[in-house]
Amino acid sequence: MKLKIIKIGGNVINDKAKLAEALKDFAAIKTPKILVHGGGRKASELSQQMNIEPKMINGRRVTDEATLEIVTMVYSGLLNTQIVANLQALDCNAVGLNGADLNLIQSHKRVVKDIDYGFAGDIDFCNSTLLKQLIDLGVSPVFCAITHDKNGQLLNTNADTIASTLAVALSDYFEVELTYTFEKAGVLYDAEDNNSLIPLITKSDYKQLKADKIIFDGMIPKIDNAFLALEKGVNLVEIGGTKFLLNT
Amino acid sequence: MKLKIIKIGGNVINDKAKLAEALKDFAAIKTPKILVHGGGRKASELSQQMNIEPKMINGRRVTDEATLEIVTMVYSGLLNTQIVANLQALDCNAVGLNGADLNLIQSHKRVVKDIDYGFAGDIDFCNSTLLKQLIDLGVSPVFCAITHDKNGQLLNTNADTIASTLAVALSDYFEVELTYTFEKAGVLYDAEDNNSLIPLITKSDYKQLKADKIIFDGMIPKIDNAFLALEKGVNLVEIGGTKFLLNT
Repeated sequence: MKLKIIKIGGNVINDKAKLAEALKDFAAIKTPKILVHGGGRKASELSQQMNIEPKMINGRRVTDEATLEIVTMVYSGLLNTQIVANLQALDCNAVGLNGADLNLIQSHKRVVKDIDYGFAGDIDFCNSTLLKQLIDLGVSPVFCAITHDKNGQLLNTNADTIASTLAVALSDYFEVELTYTFEKAGVLYDAEDNNSLIPLITKSDYKQLKADKIIFDGMIPKIDNAFLALEKGVNLVEIGGTKFLLNT
Repeated sequence: MKLKIIKIGGNVINDKAKLAEALKDFAAIKTPKILVHGGGRKASELSQQMNIEPKMINGRRVTDEATLEIVTMVYSGLLNTQIVANLQALDCNAVGLNGADLNLIQSHKRVVKDIDYGFAGDIDFCNSTLLKQLIDLGVSPVFCAITHDKNGQLLNTNADTIASTLAVALSDYFEVELTYTFEKAGVLYDAEDNNSLIPLITKSDYKQLKADKIIFDGMIPKIDNAFLALEKGVNLVEIGGTKFLLNT
């Protein structure tokens, strides 16, 4: 049976109309489904209201204790709960979850090498058996990007990685299709031209596109992550309108 | 089969040691179990940090839009998630829930009579079928006091009422025992003497105790609520160390 996993990021969450559209699309999916959401700007806004300066290194949030409280309140409290209530209004039987619930996603505090990211979690384990049982009750899990270490410590975790971890773990039970919504149409031939969508990328295409510098910078880890998921058993990965397959 | 429902309030949540003790006790319960928690002082603290003055009328929080965001963040985000992570560390397979999850507790915005309590929810419905299925998976639900109206509106709801609603709804499936932790030893013969516990109160005792002014003021709605739950099928209600039964 098919299972769809949809990941929505900050660009959707920050835009009321886009979020409403994304939730409507999600509710309309007929197969079993999971929504994973990132954070958006609300956590930074709350930090400012509380006079706590958000710390970023290389575009990644550094999660000190105060920031962990804030992201837990915003991601797991406000955003997750509002998304679930909105899905319920669309007759989608959603349940809000984070990694601590049912010990679904266990992680460890990121080991410090050059940079101390604080309470950032790197994932060790996904309890796919219990998640499968939940899905079998006909419910649609909605995950925020908080996990735990099974010793009582919550950890701020990358939402893209949560989505791919769930996709890989559930590919034991389902034909999993993983979609990352994206601020552009998808992967583009010309990063400046939203009409230049590349509709399909196989692994050999990817090598060529990198060699030709059509794919570069921040897209590379995203696409590496997509192919890794495919290699680990996920059936299809999409970034916006671009589909990724190991082979055609 | 027995099901234990434990409600912990602000006096437990505000005290780290008491909370740790309560969670240890909860994790040790061998039968199916549910934890319901109130808010404590953290929501008011956050309001102050954000320069939003908490509004209270007759000891009840008035929930305007800003306050609803705050209680959602604190109850459903911070407290619920931390409690679940701490229970997982005690090998209790907890899942954090609010009323919007699985449409478990549906309510309506309190009708304005004399006082407008804002986004306060009065409960209409408990989806006990799905909650029973969840419990049958061997998991322990942990509820915060947020519900929804099934039209996308979250509502701040009394945690005592959530506990008794769950107790009544699940008494179709279980022999339910509902315990309210309490800041005193229980119901007391002398409100000033914590050693004067009344260990058992039947309905006829209750009439006499009220007539004798031993039970008065804020205890009356609490105890009315306890007997209502018993009349609706709950097997046993406890407030601290005091047990309530319809008849001996």
